[in-house]
Amino acid sequence: MPDPPTDDATIESVGEFGLIDRLARIVGRTGVDPLQPTRTGDINIGDDAALWTPTPGAREVLTTDALIEDVHFRLSTTSWRDLGWKALAENVSDIAAMGARPTRAFVTLGLRRTTRLADLEDLYGGMADLIRALGECGCDGVHIAGGDTVSAAVTMLSITVVGELRGQGLRRSAGQAGDLLAVTGTLGGSAGGLALLEAGQSSTDDLDVADLVRCHRRPWPRVAEGLALAEAGVQCGMDLSDGLLGDSGKLAYASGLSATLLLDQIPVPAALGRRFGQPAQLMALAGGEDYELLVAGPPATIEAASFALGERGLAPLAVVGRLEDGPSGAVTVLDADGRPMDVSSGSWDHFRQAREGA
Amino acid sequence: MPDPPTDDATIESVGEFGLIDRLARIVGRTGVDPLQPTRTGDINIGDDAALWTPTPGAREVLTTDALIEDVHFRLSTTSWRDLGWKALAENVSDIAAMGARPTRAFVTLGLRRTTRLADLEDLYGGMADLIRALGECGCDGVHIAGGDTVSAAVTMLSITVVGELRGQGLRRSAGQAGDLLAVTGTLGGSAGGLALLEAGQSSTDDLDVADLVRCHRRPWPRVAEGLALAEAGVQCGMDLSDGLLGDSGKLAYASGLSATLLLDQIPVPAALGRRFGQPAQLMALAGGEDYELLVAGPPATIEAASFALGERGLAPLAVVGRLEDGPSGAVTVLDADGRPMDVSSGSWDHFRQAREGA
Repeated sequence: MPDPPTDDATIESVGEFGLIDRLARIVGRTGVDPLQPTRTGDINIGDDAALWTPTPGAREVLTTDALIEDVHFRLSTTSWRDLGWKALAENVSDIAAMGARPTRAFVTLGLRRTTRLADLEDLYGGMADLIRALGECGCDGVHIAGGDTVSAAVTMLSITVVGELRGQGLRRSAGQAGDLLAVTGTLGGSAGGLALLEAGQSSTDDLDVADLVRCHRRPWPRVAEGLALAEAGVQCGMDLSDGLLGDSGKLAYASGLSATLLLDQIPVPAALGRRFGQPAQLMALAGGEDYELLVAGPPATIEAASFALGERGLAPLAVVGRLEDGPSGAVTVLDADGRPMDVSSGSWDHFRQAREGA
Repeated sequence: MPDPPTDDATIESVGEFGLIDRLARIVGRTGVDPLQPTRTGDINIGDDAALWTPTPGAREVLTTDALIEDVHFRLSTTSWRDLGWKALAENVSDIAAMGARPTRAFVTLGLRRTTRLADLEDLYGGMADLIRALGECGCDGVHIAGGDTVSAAVTMLSITVVGELRGQGLRRSAGQAGDLLAVTGTLGGSAGGLALLEAGQSSTDDLDVADLVRCHRRPWPRVAEGLALAEAGVQCGMDLSDGLLGDSGKLAYASGLSATLLLDQIPVPAALGRRFGQPAQLMALAGGEDYELLVAGPPATIEAASFALGERGLAPLAVVGRLEDGPSGAVTVLDADGRPMDVSSGSWDHFRQAREGA
């Protein structure tokens, strides 16, 4: 394994070929040498396109997402390593949301010429951290199989992740009236972490702060949960990137139904409740970037699926609401007394409102 | 089919959901309604990820490329429609260069909030033009199956194209010492078109100018040729995006060989010769963005493959050099008298030299 560069070498100083070689070496540390064809004849980096043989009986899934400097992240407050983790995690989460298994990622970077090689290595290092962590949790074999690197005035990442789906998988449009809505994990942690960072609090001595900041910087894509839920018979699901309020509206809309959410049933991290008190529930309702899964299914299916998660050592589902007949995509939130709350849209709209931080 | 917007509506004014609906309608004009699951259960736009069933016996290929405003194109000199065509064509060309058939594209856009909807429709219109043209040439079924649209300070496109490969396909690394190097079509047309545009000449009254400008703005990906060449037994190939000089070095390097090119054997468009005289050969040698295919094979294979192209009504191959033992990736260019020329690298290096125009 080559030493990381100790100087301030920039991508400009090594040129395109030097950069490709350097990136290939970093990517190779994720477990697959991308410059060598694999045993099965797959091609990763080094030809005009990547090439692989689909697993017989599986379908292919593909997602692509872009992150732009000063829109989705700020290099002044985000480390390159966390950026690498999070950018890849967001895409892996979309694969998890289909009930599929991620297999390979393609990383397209727009970089300033003055970008330090050490920073770029950190970026890939963060992706490698996630790939290793996924491997330790039973999702091995994910690798960076290609991409493109171009010069740009602002840093941008466009990541494509491919995966394979066995069985029916999870679709947004498969909800039925009477289905329960349920989520994995807890919500609001990322919003809490962002709020703390914006207030200048990032001390890792305070365990609550550290917990919430980690939720924001290193979200965990629910791959194992998505596979288990689909296998347990859940057919409807998506991942929570824009917040439960907005995303449950999207799921309801795709299914041609309305949704009702029960505010005090939304699970929040203990640290969020301790740090923020009462507003924690609202942060869990409207805050984005938790990357938990939101699923819908008949009560018996949700119960069985939650049990199946427990059997695999995964946290059970929390029921947060239901789908019902009504205006497509409408969401009603009921407070602890069962009264409808006045909620303006908390969903993220890229072109009407600037997203701060990341 | 809805009318194009006649006002100056911007993407900011319609919001994210309005934009997605609008884009889906434009994309639908390419022949596939991306919001509806297909007969075979494929999912395009509208869920967390796209989903498809691989064709039995075929392998999957995937390429991804980014184009950044003021690095790869200028909106002052490139129309949105041409930009759409060219951005998609570059990626389709990478699939063609594998000897594969493109099937679906994923379009990620970074857009200024003030981008006019009409311009965005033109961008997709250019992609639709290419998709229709491919369909007319026997490559039907290509469609835009998803993507992402985000706000950005500069316009950027990151396109992923997936295709399917039957048989061995074309690989850069499959060259053997003694192989002939051959190209489809003619080279230098794009460089000629760019030179004319930079000199302020774009009159479509002059057929030579129109020809060369079209080479630059609307390159034609050699899908039919790639399929025919692979079927005829050619195993080594790539597409010419960065110029014959640099790209033949890449092919030679991947095959562990050296290359020799014969300057006066390089085919140029008639219009390029008429307009530029003697320098036309050098433009064909070093100019990029022609998106012709460069292949290598034993003389008998190249002859048979060229014949196979002719049988399908496609232009034959032109032999431009050979591969031989020697320093890996080294390229020698011989002039009309067989003397080695002094050529500094004409290959494109993104981080050492700014690419002008597009």
